[in-house]
Amino acid sequence: MVEQKATNITKHIGLVSPEEREETFNQKGCVIWLTGLSGSGKSTVAVKAEQMLVKRGVHAFVLDGDNIRFGLNKDLGFSPEDRTENIRRIGEVAALFANAGVITLTAFISPYIKDRDFARSHLAEGRFLECLVDSSLEICEDRDPKGLYKKARAGIIPQFTGVSAPYEYPENPELEVTTDCTVEESAQQVIDQLVGRGLISA
Amino acid sequence: MVEQKATNITKHIGLVSPEEREETFNQKGCVIWLTGLSGSGKSTVAVKAEQMLVKRGVHAFVLDGDNIRFGLNKDLGFSPEDRTENIRRIGEVAALFANAGVITLTAFISPYIKDRDFARSHLAEGRFLECLVDSSLEICEDRDPKGLYKKARAGIIPQFTGVSAPYEYPENPELEVTTDCTVEESAQQVIDQLVGRGLISA
Repeated sequence: MVEQKATNITKHIGLVSPEEREETFNQKGCVIWLTGLSGSGKSTVAVKAEQMLVKRGVHAFVLDGDNIRFGLNKDLGFSPEDRTENIRRIGEVAALFANAGVITLTAFISPYIKDRDFARSHLAEGRFLECLVDSSLEICEDRDPKGLYKKARAGIIPQFTGVSAPYEYPENPELEVTTDCTVEESAQQVIDQLVGRGLISA
Repeated sequence: MVEQKATNITKHIGLVSPEEREETFNQKGCVIWLTGLSGSGKSTVAVKAEQMLVKRGVHAFVLDGDNIRFGLNKDLGFSPEDRTENIRRIGEVAALFANAGVITLTAFISPYIKDRDFARSHLAEGRFLECLVDSSLEICEDRDPKGLYKKARAGIIPQFTGVSAPYEYPENPELEVTTDCTVEESAQQVIDQLVGRGLISA
């Protein structure tokens, strides 16, 4: 666990209450945390759901390897410690986005239960939806869109989730999507979940 | 400069263009980067501007010590290196918010020019507005709302900006606000700037 290092800092009171924000923008900020193996389709589902949400006029945004690993977390690699710090920071940033009222989709392997639970701990009940993108290792490895499994099997990439590093499945995810349907159908499942929970309007 | 550590990552193409996002929400994501001494009024101006923006139906959000130092950057202190890493991460997160279409107000002392310029470098021309909250050291020290200057003068707090650590003034800030007017007037200056630049509608 990361310890609070800076002292001499004080809490500053914002002037916009969460309720005011929700009413103004007619949506409740939350995090849809997609987790699953490399190549399972997390980012694909996330960006499709984002597109469908924005088309509905809903403020939505995706955090994924693209905008995090090349930016905020460019100083981190794939050791267990770095993975934990990676997910810690993403959890903090996702919570900031949710507090800003944004429907926030995160698409990271996030293989450890404790890291995902830590991300969950930043948000109020019902505002963190863990979503397992459930493609089997076989399917992911067969797909291998980036050729990473091949490299992992050849020992070129160490600590690769599912091959040489563990993936801990969620025990009670709020949602499971498979990718044996179309990506639109998977994304629609995410949206149905948001509507069903009253986080966005129908 | 932080080096890119993770390899084996690929850019994933989003499906929502910045233009589509801007048109849908009728605002252009940007960063208003408030900088100034401790006690100069950065957070006060930021949260007032946020409130006035949300009242206009504009998605706006404040990043400040409250939601950053206790969260994302709780592992960082006030050494020069930690300050730089603090501002680096904030710059990355502010850029994410701007890319999500949010009018993003940041309120951090951010004493070093090179750190502020690095934050600026993440954004397109015209999307990063440096805003000096210009209260003199005398005034800030006289105000001393958190009793920090007193502690800094007594040597209890080391590396305190303006007392025992430098503050580098912006050379060409897009905006300067003083706090010899009301906080509403200062916040209105920020909003006028946003309107004047076509980032939000009048």
